Amino acid sequence: MKTGTTDMWRASVLTIFPEMFPGPLGASLAGKALASKLWSLDAIDIRDFATDKHRTVDDTPAGGGPGMVMKPDVLARALDSVPADGRPRLLMSARGTPLTQPRVRELAGGPGAIILCGRFEGVDERVIEARQLEEISLGDFVLSGGEPAAMALIDACVRLIPGVMGKEASGAEESFSDGLLEYPQYTRPAEFEGRPIPEVLTSGDHAKVSQWRMERSKALTRERRPDVWAAYCDKTGQKPPLPEG
Amino acid sequence: MKTGTTDMWRASVLTIFPEMFPGPLGASLAGKALASKLWSLDAIDIRDFATDKHRTVDDTPAGGGPGMVMKPDVLARALDSVPADGRPRLLMSARGTPLTQPRVRELAGGPGAIILCGRFEGVDERVIEARQLEEISLGDFVLSGGEPAAMALIDACVRLIPGVMGKEASGAEESFSDGLLEYPQYTRPAEFEGRPIPEVLTSGDHAKVSQWRMERSKALTRERRPDVWAAYCDKTGQKPPLPEG
Repeated sequence: MKTGTTDMWRASVLTIFPEMFPGPLGASLAGKALASKLWSLDAIDIRDFATDKHRTVDDTPAGGGPGMVMKPDVLARALDSVPADGRPRLLMSARGTPLTQPRVRELAGGPGAIILCGRFEGVDERVIEARQLEEISLGDFVLSGGEPAAMALIDACVRLIPGVMGKEASGAEESFSDGLLEYPQYTRPAEFEGRPIPEVLTSGDHAKVSQWRMERSKALTRERRPDVWAAYCDKTGQKPPLPEG
Repeated sequence: MKTGTTDMWRASVLTIFPEMFPGPLGASLAGKALASKLWSLDAIDIRDFATDKHRTVDDTPAGGGPGMVMKPDVLARALDSVPADGRPRLLMSARGTPLTQPRVRELAGGPGAIILCGRFEGVDERVIEARQLEEISLGDFVLSGGEPAAMALIDACVRLIPGVMGKEASGAEESFSDGLLEYPQYTRPAEFEGRPIPEVLTSGDHAKVSQWRMERSKALTRERRPDVWAAYCDKTGQKPPLPEG
């Protein structure tokens, strides 16, 4: 377990499947950055904090019903074993606040995160209250446990750590960075199955390219995500444009 | 590559990081089900469909700008190599339709999914159009690539495949199954750090337990997710309750 005072962004994951980590976080962009010590990852086995010989971490729900609930005493011991060092304690949970890019940016700009992965029917409410866990949801769907959600959250944070994305990549021009979905992209070949690259993109006129991309971003956002579009109009004081046609 | 006509739920993932799979999907619930052949997973290396000796899959964006764009010709060849067998072709993308539990249920009830994982700045728009890819987003945040998103999507689907969750678990009583967030759960010990289990849950009165849980689900949904609450009220014809107090 890491207790240092390094400036490295540090993820500590509490899970009953520590063998899942680093998993996909050990490859690609995140994996290279992990190997280069731009961030660190500890996977802590919750079962190590059980006190019986069966290493029990769950029990039946009070009040009855299907499934098992993770025990508050075991989880509290596991959480208390990890020095917070200013890091927020998160619980990946379908009941949580949906993750957004602004929250990712905040987390990536901080010292790291302690992430508890729920399993079974859930986590005893009292440990959520007593340890003031911040419940975060990836979206309105249900996973078998918090581990895939923790991986997605960590991946989203790590790519924003300074030095992780090379110059060739970009965190600035992307979906949600300005409150709009990303414009369509094209590359060679110039024609693919009879479909050409839009002429403006090969015109060499940078102002026109920028204008076209902004228009396409706005149109895509309006069509696909009226909620995101409404928030963008609010933020920018822009009036919703008239319907097309 | 799998071409059989089995009834097994089949995931085919197109990626430049095939070594990431099965990763977390090889452990826990999904991993046991994979070993029991309740579903199957193929990870297809997109680079196998490049034609140059460097196995190039990306190129610079038409119109300029940072990053690289995945080439339409290479992706089309990779997609065309996988027999669809009635499966939808999905592209994990921050621009896509946010994944919801109803869509997860549809996907889980079908023959499987072919999932293209985008990387770099994105995927040439023409292959999205030409192969009618359904763009799906986990939520309003940006990942380094589609792989962690594909894992979450597959995990969400696999747990709903008949036979994957044991009798002890439940797909029925959970967040979003009835349009509400899940009620708080409790288990032993009866007292944790001075916090008791709510009395009603140990009363043995099943009707009261059910009523308490429904009330807590509604209250949580109203507090945390006004959007989900509004949709629930619409669906059930229920009037929003008066403010508390």
